[in-house]
Amino acid sequence: MRMKKAIVMMLAVVAAIGVKAQTIVPLGTPQWDKSKEGSATLVETLQSRHSERSFASDEITDAELSKILWAACGINRREQKRITAPSAINAQDVVVYVCRKDGAYRYNALQQQLEKVSDKDLRTAVAGRQEFAAKAPVSLVLVSDQSKFGNRTGEGTQLMGAIDCGYVSQNICLMCEAMKLKTVPRATMDKTLLATELHLGDNQLILLNHPIGR
Amino acid sequence: MRMKKAIVMMLAVVAAIGVKAQTIVPLGTPQWDKSKEGSATLVETLQSRHSERSFASDEITDAELSKILWAACGINRREQKRITAPSAINAQDVVVYVCRKDGAYRYNALQQQLEKVSDKDLRTAVAGRQEFAAKAPVSLVLVSDQSKFGNRTGEGTQLMGAIDCGYVSQNICLMCEAMKLKTVPRATMDKTLLATELHLGDNQLILLNHPIGR
Repeated sequence: MRMKKAIVMMLAVVAAIGVKAQTIVPLGTPQWDKSKEGSATLVETLQSRHSERSFASDEITDAELSKILWAACGINRREQKRITAPSAINAQDVVVYVCRKDGAYRYNALQQQLEKVSDKDLRTAVAGRQEFAAKAPVSLVLVSDQSKFGNRTGEGTQLMGAIDCGYVSQNICLMCEAMKLKTVPRATMDKTLLATELHLGDNQLILLNHPIGR
Repeated sequence: MRMKKAIVMMLAVVAAIGVKAQTIVPLGTPQWDKSKEGSATLVETLQSRHSERSFASDEITDAELSKILWAACGINRREQKRITAPSAINAQDVVVYVCRKDGAYRYNALQQQLEKVSDKDLRTAVAGRQEFAAKAPVSLVLVSDQSKFGNRTGEGTQLMGAIDCGYVSQNICLMCEAMKLKTVPRATMDKTLLATELHLGDNQLILLNHPIGR
């Protein structure tokens, strides 16, 4: 009887791992290229920062996403769980979603991995009325999870969430610039559709997106 | 008679220049130190970015301010009047005020200069209830000039202004990190007093401040 229980439990664990293996994309530690973005100075990057609105369809690799997402709001002091972007009352409220051909993923900074939330290609929902944006191979969607502010609600926390999205968005702009990738921060998108497909509630404020390409 | 007119006009010009000389502080083009912030890479800067809340009273020089303010929202493509930080509908709505012992100044990015708006030391107004912040030799105040969004008003433009402040604030965080200066973005401050002293109207949204020190 005990043996049976153990086998059932083992099967359950295997099944759970199986599901996880399908839905998680490990990004690995960013590997900085010393001859490219690894040597770009902050000053040079600020000097050349600009927005771009036309994209080739060439894919952005997971290795590239690892760098961009780490820069956006990745862990930079692991022992304290602190990240590259400041946030109001250190709420770390900004969640980044990755939308590409094979589906949509939530970025988990602590594990440096992507977790699938939808099998659909949501890039046209991100593009909204602006077709150019749908051509990018990847679009990042920035959401402020207002529940991270605890009991505080209302206009104040919405502004905090917006400021916090600005921090993360600028990190994305700068890292794309350093990597010679193109991006533009946008507020236009089909928020209703995205909320449904990304399983977001009223407490999750969809604020910005970044199509990224070459 | 014509001679008299010419002399009166000349005197008026001299007087105008005299007033200007008192109220304008030219910052000059930022001079990047190749052995310091000039060589700091974006990746290193993101790796070490953190907030600091204790400051020595040592002054921040105008040459240092020139670098920090340029990074914040200075001109990076002069022919197009574009700046280091993106902004919603390219409104470039964020105005940075510099508060220090000798008064308060508005940063003019196009001229790379400070323009005095008050003779008062407003650092305690910036600090609000948090005394540590008043000890910094300089505090920057970030304001979204909502009139830059034209006829658009309301919650939407407030959120845009907040996001735009986030961009500028992150640039300040990163440049301070590269310069080994301390700063922390804060929302606490005496906004009523600051609005009066900085001559701001209802359309100017005071959103963030940055005490900066060593």
